[in-house]
Amino acid sequence: MVAEANKMCTHTVVSIYLNPAQFAKDEDLATYPKNLQHDLEALSQFQIDAIFLPIDSEMYPRGYSTYMQETKLSTVLEGRSRPLFFQGVATVVAKFFNIVRPTHAFFGEKDAQQLLVVKKVVKDMAYPIDIISCPIIRHNNGLAMSSRNSYLSKLEQKAASIIYRSLQDGKNLIISGERNAQTIRDQITQTIMQENLLRIDYVSVTDAETLVEMSGNISNNILVSTAVFLGKTRLIDNFSYSASSNK
Amino acid sequence: MVAEANKMCTHTVVSIYLNPAQFAKDEDLATYPKNLQHDLEALSQFQIDAIFLPIDSEMYPRGYSTYMQETKLSTVLEGRSRPLFFQGVATVVAKFFNIVRPTHAFFGEKDAQQLLVVKKVVKDMAYPIDIISCPIIRHNNGLAMSSRNSYLSKLEQKAASIIYRSLQDGKNLIISGERNAQTIRDQITQTIMQENLLRIDYVSVTDAETLVEMSGNISNNILVSTAVFLGKTRLIDNFSYSASSNK
Repeated sequence: MVAEANKMCTHTVVSIYLNPAQFAKDEDLATYPKNLQHDLEALSQFQIDAIFLPIDSEMYPRGYSTYMQETKLSTVLEGRSRPLFFQGVATVVAKFFNIVRPTHAFFGEKDAQQLLVVKKVVKDMAYPIDIISCPIIRHNNGLAMSSRNSYLSKLEQKAASIIYRSLQDGKNLIISGERNAQTIRDQITQTIMQENLLRIDYVSVTDAETLVEMSGNISNNILVSTAVFLGKTRLIDNFSYSASSNK
Repeated sequence: MVAEANKMCTHTVVSIYLNPAQFAKDEDLATYPKNLQHDLEALSQFQIDAIFLPIDSEMYPRGYSTYMQETKLSTVLEGRSRPLFFQGVATVVAKFFNIVRPTHAFFGEKDAQQLLVVKKVVKDMAYPIDIISCPIIRHNNGLAMSSRNSYLSKLEQKAASIIYRSLQDGKNLIISGERNAQTIRDQITQTIMQENLLRIDYVSVTDAETLVEMSGNISNNILVSTAVFLGKTRLIDNFSYSASSNK
């Protein structure tokens, strides 16, 4: 994301903030991996004009009471499993936009639904900002990079690699001509279930824009996504597929 | 408000928009008085750089799904009688801010709660905008100016003048030393009830910042407000009182 910003923009501001508003009480806010020193070192190879490092009492002072809410895309998939998540995301992103006033903002495709929600907020609320999506970056075994991967033991890391393999299986099925959404979901589900350590939260094939779950044959542009538990760790991954471009 | 903007700012943008998002289904959106020609004539005495006249399909296109919500101040008084009102206000104001990007924004004190909610949204969401409050302007008989006054017959206009008189009675009571909130509410209620055409929605004495209804003695800074029905027309009025400054 930062490399992309350096390419597209004259100035780059990086925000590093673990946003409490997007965690429910029973979620992993308290243990969420953070390592500022490591982040700063990783950033040292880029041109950074400013790092925005707010603290909670600045973002959500006592008596804070204002929230941004996207009410359609936010209700499914991650929103169903994590009811507060997208309200927290939309609120903090809008507040960042008001403070930083960027021309472009960069989001990762691993959080595909978050990307869609942010784009919808920007469009609906008329923020003069281009949202740029950045491809998922993966470890050698295929596991999508995520802060939460550091929760995983070596054994779990190996088990987690099947998530990406399951999505590849689903994609290959589509490329080979399969069009039935349930058959695609079943294939992915079967592959994941080969690994006993994984517990499926959802396997989803939706319209890529509306996030409406597909029944019958898939539409032109789809988002195929999954969320799985590995012990207490919840991991997500996805791919988008455009029938017209065949990729 | 425009005169004040002309005094404080190098450029003035006026928005004229009847915002459907702040009306409930059973409210008066369809009949709300609007007269663009009259508005433009009234504006001709001021320096205006631009008039922002959006249409509904630009503000709320098909599939619109994003809302700003203030969750504390919005729940009482007008928010209790009009559950969608402040979500509609906060959303449209935030969207205007994103489009117009003003340095200052001017709001009337007649909608005292709206003013507080907008200030809270600006503070919580870190909009770099100064909110300037502008005093209520009244007709000769004391009635606070409002678009909805045009709903009133001559007879009703006369009856409506008692709203301001009731607030003056309340204020005089405070100035004379009365500190009990209920006694102040009772005085205002009694005055309004002298006019049979009026039906009280609420008479309120709250803390001027939190909008918490006062019991016992009043605090230093209070908002005294009322909403009354005159037939189908709903009218509001208010005054703020600061015990320390005695006004």
